[in-house]
Amino acid sequence: MASNSSGGSSDRQRIAKQRLRIIAGHLQRPADDDSAVGAAECTAQGSKTDASSEERTVPRRRHEIMKWNGWGYSDSKFVYNKKGQAEFTGKRYRLSGMIIPGLKDWMENTFGATLQHKTPATPILNSSAVQAPTLNEVFVEELKSTHIPFSHDAEDRVFRAHGHCLHEIFALREGKIGRVPDLVVWPSCHSDVEKIVELACKHNVCLIPYGGGTSVSSALECPPEETRSIVSLDTSQMNRILWIDEKNLTAHVEAGIVGQDLERLLNESGYCTGHEPDSMEFSSLGGWVATRASGMKKNIYGNIEDLVIHIKMVTPQGVIEKSCQCPRMSTGPDVHHFIMGSEGTLGVVTEVTLKIRPVPEYQKYGSVVFPNFEQGVACLREVAKQRCAPASIRLMDNEQFKFGHALKPQVSSIFTSFLDGLKKLYITKFKGFDPNRLCVATLLFEGDREKVLQHEKQVYTIAAKFGGLAAGEDNGQRGYMLTFVIAYLRDLGMDYYVIGESFETSVPWDRVLDICRNVKARIVRECKEKGVQFPPLSTCRVTQTYDAGACVYFYFAFNYRGLSDPIHVYEEVEHAAREEILANGGSLSHHHGAPTGSRLSQRARRVQARCSISWWTAGEVAAPGLVPQPHSLRRFGRRLRAKAPLRLGWPRPPAGAEAGVRTPSRVRSGAPVCTMGQEPPAPVAQSEGAGDGLLQPPAGPSSGNTHSLMSLIVC
Amino acid sequence: MASNSSGGSSDRQRIAKQRLRIIAGHLQRPADDDSAVGAAECTAQGSKTDASSEERTVPRRRHEIMKWNGWGYSDSKFVYNKKGQAEFTGKRYRLSGMIIPGLKDWMENTFGATLQHKTPATPILNSSAVQAPTLNEVFVEELKSTHIPFSHDAEDRVFRAHGHCLHEIFALREGKIGRVPDLVVWPSCHSDVEKIVELACKHNVCLIPYGGGTSVSSALECPPEETRSIVSLDTSQMNRILWIDEKNLTAHVEAGIVGQDLERLLNESGYCTGHEPDSMEFSSLGGWVATRASGMKKNIYGNIEDLVIHIKMVTPQGVIEKSCQCPRMSTGPDVHHFIMGSEGTLGVVTEVTLKIRPVPEYQKYGSVVFPNFEQGVACLREVAKQRCAPASIRLMDNEQFKFGHALKPQVSSIFTSFLDGLKKLYITKFKGFDPNRLCVATLLFEGDREKVLQHEKQVYTIAAKFGGLAAGEDNGQRGYMLTFVIAYLRDLGMDYYVIGESFETSVPWDRVLDICRNVKARIVRECKEKGVQFPPLSTCRVTQTYDAGACVYFYFAFNYRGLSDPIHVYEEVEHAAREEILANGGSLSHHHGAPTGSRLSQRARRVQARCSISWWTAGEVAAPGLVPQPHSLRRFGRRLRAKAPLRLGWPRPPAGAEAGVRTPSRVRSGAPVCTMGQEPPAPVAQSEGAGDGLLQPPAGPSSGNTHSLMSLIVC
Repeated sequence: MASNSSGGSSDRQRIAKQRLRIIAGHLQRPADDDSAVGAAECTAQGSKTDASSEERTVPRRRHEIMKWNGWGYSDSKFVYNKKGQAEFTGKRYRLSGMIIPGLKDWMENTFGATLQHKTPATPILNSSAVQAPTLNEVFVEELKSTHIPFSHDAEDRVFRAHGHCLHEIFALREGKIGRVPDLVVWPSCHSDVEKIVELACKHNVCLIPYGGGTSVSSALECPPEETRSIVSLDTSQMNRILWIDEKNLTAHVEAGIVGQDLERLLNESGYCTGHEPDSMEFSSLGGWVATRASGMKKNIYGNIEDLVIHIKMVTPQGVIEKSCQCPRMSTGPDVHHFIMGSEGTLGVVTEVTLKIRPVPEYQKYGSVVFPNFEQGVACLREVAKQRCAPASIRLMDNEQFKFGHALKPQVSSIFTSFLDGLKKLYITKFKGFDPNRLCVATLLFEGDREKVLQHEKQVYTIAAKFGGLAAGEDNGQRGYMLTFVIAYLRDLGMDYYVIGESFETSVPWDRVLDICRNVKARIVRECKEKGVQFPPLSTCRVTQTYDAGACVYFYFAFNYRGLSDPIHVYEEVEHAAREEILANGGSLSHHHGAPTGSRLSQRARRVQARCSISWWTAGEVAAPGLVPQPHSLRRFGRRLRAKAPLRLGWPRPPAGAEAGVRTPSRVRSGAPVCTMGQEPPAPVAQSEGAGDGLLQPPAGPSSGNTHSLMSLIVC
Repeated sequence: MASNSSGGSSDRQRIAKQRLRIIAGHLQRPADDDSAVGAAECTAQGSKTDASSEERTVPRRRHEIMKWNGWGYSDSKFVYNKKGQAEFTGKRYRLSGMIIPGLKDWMENTFGATLQHKTPATPILNSSAVQAPTLNEVFVEELKSTHIPFSHDAEDRVFRAHGHCLHEIFALREGKIGRVPDLVVWPSCHSDVEKIVELACKHNVCLIPYGGGTSVSSALECPPEETRSIVSLDTSQMNRILWIDEKNLTAHVEAGIVGQDLERLLNESGYCTGHEPDSMEFSSLGGWVATRASGMKKNIYGNIEDLVIHIKMVTPQGVIEKSCQCPRMSTGPDVHHFIMGSEGTLGVVTEVTLKIRPVPEYQKYGSVVFPNFEQGVACLREVAKQRCAPASIRLMDNEQFKFGHALKPQVSSIFTSFLDGLKKLYITKFKGFDPNRLCVATLLFEGDREKVLQHEKQVYTIAAKFGGLAAGEDNGQRGYMLTFVIAYLRDLGMDYYVIGESFETSVPWDRVLDICRNVKARIVRECKEKGVQFPPLSTCRVTQTYDAGACVYFYFAFNYRGLSDPIHVYEEVEHAAREEILANGGSLSHHHGAPTGSRLSQRARRVQARCSISWWTAGEVAAPGLVPQPHSLRRFGRRLRAKAPLRLGWPRPPAGAEAGVRTPSRVRSGAPVCTMGQEPPAPVAQSEGAGDGLLQPPAGPSSGNTHSLMSLIVC
């Protein structure tokens, strides 16, 4: 490629005109020669109009409506009222304003957590505890001239310094504020993002994209050692549906939109994406793309990789996008799959074309009680084998079944609770179900009414073969309704010395039972060994089915009273649980994204590093075939952010320092890379850099993180 | 990572043992401490036993049963017999041994091709026309010690020097042999491949993986300027099903197996993959993975990316594979999608785990006649919208309908032809269908008998809304049967001055009609302008449906009598057709893989280069949003093979020559890459290297083609 010609953009204009001429040749009227195919130009500058912000959930100053140190809306939380009953405040949810009579006892029985032992959170952010921002003044000056809103208020910065990992929320509750972004910026559209990325490159500023802020993989943590200015690029104001294409059933949407807004707006036109992750109230389209998100109803609508038709991402080197909106291509490796799962390390996703479907005519919930978990799993496996899964089918274990009961709101109708009691009696006494072994599957069907009823029949018939008994729509519906309030429960727990987390995996069918049993047992054992006073909650559910396996979701929580470093204990136990998962054939994550466990113990970090950044080496060839998963991508991402987030402003290596990719010594000597049959280098160097043996980004800006990314992720 | 420790493989052993210990803890008997989780070790060395080779289609010396200069089996071809009737020889196909009475007239009417004007192929390969092999002697010596079979016979080498692009077969028929591999090697298993790749690295040999040899994207061409020894790595003898997992419905298969063998062997156990590309008799599993293959019944079984659970690939830097067999993960970008579509540029795929399904209980063909193509497309779009597509549904245009008729074998039953005649009469005279506008959709249903009949009813009901009339199973079945013999027809055509090719695209629904009409018309126009004496065959079908669009398949063929450089004319017309496709919103390829058009005219190459290797530049940001597709991946691959196939033996740049990635001059000066808002460099340099302005591989073995690949493919 000639590097000195200025023909580039005029070449592109010429291509565009040529294409237009071709198409124009088919039209009755010749097209204007000066017309060019244009992408949807963003004309929005500065602040959004009031009208559009009313339609959107997420304001710029999020802390005005959302908790700064916990989950969700400020006005919605579980509390114990004056009578010592649990209730859920606010007005936003079906559960809002209701008493939950069974919760207090459940908390006590499950965790030994009583009202007497309270450890409330720091109620208000102490702004003076927040480091003064490290502002890159030239950057800020140029940013001002773009008229893109920004802030360096402490509340804005702290809000975007974290996701929702346990350790992050725990620290906030204790008022501990570490490194936070120095600046928050709110682009309104794609071209705003281009400007910000350009400025960041130009002025050596670190960018962290921030969508819903619901990350549970530590992806939003600011590297403590980062000396450059860190800018949080908050996408929430870049949230329009740019067009809906009813002929092709697609919609082109800005990536900052959150799930609840997207569905609500599409519903107005009679459509939906059907993508409903549990976090959908707050998580963003860009975040789903970046983390390979999965939604509750993926059996109908697909996971994010099935939904996406087109992605536009701004990177330090330019904009990535395919040039057509085709359903499926073979033109080399699929670049969308470089973007999906890149978790903010490669660029900022700005616009996405998604498939949409007509809003289904009919929806029906359901539930099935199984005598035990094994029968339930066997049923789900058969449903998957017959490829007749409903929109959603989830099987919870006995503990979650009891947990679900504890969350039942007080119903005003005595008759309804009488019915519930009757049902319970019927199931246990008359049908012989052991209340300490029975499990429940919740179901959701959607579609044409006739087909739904047919489908339902088919599924219940299969369930009956595995001893399953239909248990009504209510139980099903409540199961799904609770999905959105569960996340609020952790905050209540943490008020009473209970900490917990969820984690998930995907696993082949024949490993499901082992993984469920072994991981839960391991958690209980580890807690005991580490001095946890009260047995933990260790529970799971099979939450998605596939042809070749399932997604299993674990909850793990315990009462940490008496422990001096509860987060450390938590992380050790979680690490052991993940080891157990990997040993039992599970993946590191089905949809949350690869965890970083930034506070893992040294030993645990070593294990993780060893499992993660194995260099592609000859050793892999001779070894037993256990190639560890690329779960240090996140750590690599963090390291990237330490050095050059999004490959921005790749620092020149200091004079004398060794730059370049750390490679086996044979390579450094200039010999060819191929080292087949030879001992690979040990993948871990404890003494280097941050002590985790990660690849240094290669010197020279023209290669860069995508290269390292490639090398990394295949190990 | 410490580069000098030898801990790597013992680390891996330790991980393996640790995992085993964890699992062993759950077993009654403690596991043996020395046991390690092992990948399925290949014990096969040297030649395969007779028993297994009898089960396999492809022998080492393929030319013994397959044509050296045309498609398929040597014993099967279209010929005109002594009576001047077309017949299909051999015994392998349903059509074999049958007369095709309508074909001669159709050839004459469609192309003006008569029996008098014959241009037969060179019948036998002239071995002396084949360059003596450039053997890398040290490599060969070491190869001998591995006992992996190899050959440098001319026939073996020529056979593997090409795919089935028109220009490749045309050249062979003329006896023109260009650069061919110097050696052919036949690994039997994964570890054989490791050895070969290791030796190639060690001795600076160029490797080209060869699966079915059915490439239609010029992917198998040897770069003429290649000075190193080129070795064709033929995977056909690496063809076992290693295990079938009935619990998870997966099978682990060696990548050299061809489609017909895979399905036949699985059928013996009551299973199938259901992956049935038109090339399945000869194309290989590894090839499907490398090219993102699509199969006829993808509506049930999925395309290759839906079928694959696990891939193992040998690269110069080691073996890539994920460490679990999970259905779906979020652990960074999906490395399988780096492999799928890499078309042999990154490594050799050796083993794949695929999903399998029980063989369906029932199969039923069908067909629907539509008054015109528009109605047919509208019907297919509605079927897609209702998500009720059968296993296969294809709509051919009027020309293909007539073509299909011309291929009807002579039937012994007068009654059947009488029926046919009656049907035709009914459709045309009584129902008012214009025989020059009507189109046919062929259908295939599979599954439980009851569901199939229900499904069928639903589809025909929709078809009726679009004026469609059921036209019986026979027409449907014949449509699919012809699929496997169509490829043989080109050889007949070429005997009589007719050359042709198929090409395909994927396109959004609302562009289908325009693309079909515009591309066909463009082909006709271009042929006329270029002096083609007889109007060409220019025809299409909609061959797959998706939520957001369809796959459209074109046939283009013409009589080249009177043209001095027919291949050149063909390529110019094809290039124009592809331009038309791109202009009308189509992709470069749905499933064939990105074409290289190695003999494109200079102007055409310039256009292709311009459209292809646009650097990720700031220019993309400001431009109208037309980012060209990465269709020069193939050309990049060829360039890679010129420099370092599979990144093997990356040559040190000659002293004084400029190495490194050709980048915008700003970058060379060491400034940061980000060039947002500035003029991008023109992406084409006519005067450089092979004149196509492709990226040079970067210096330094540790980066390499994966980096360039990344940079390339996103443009």
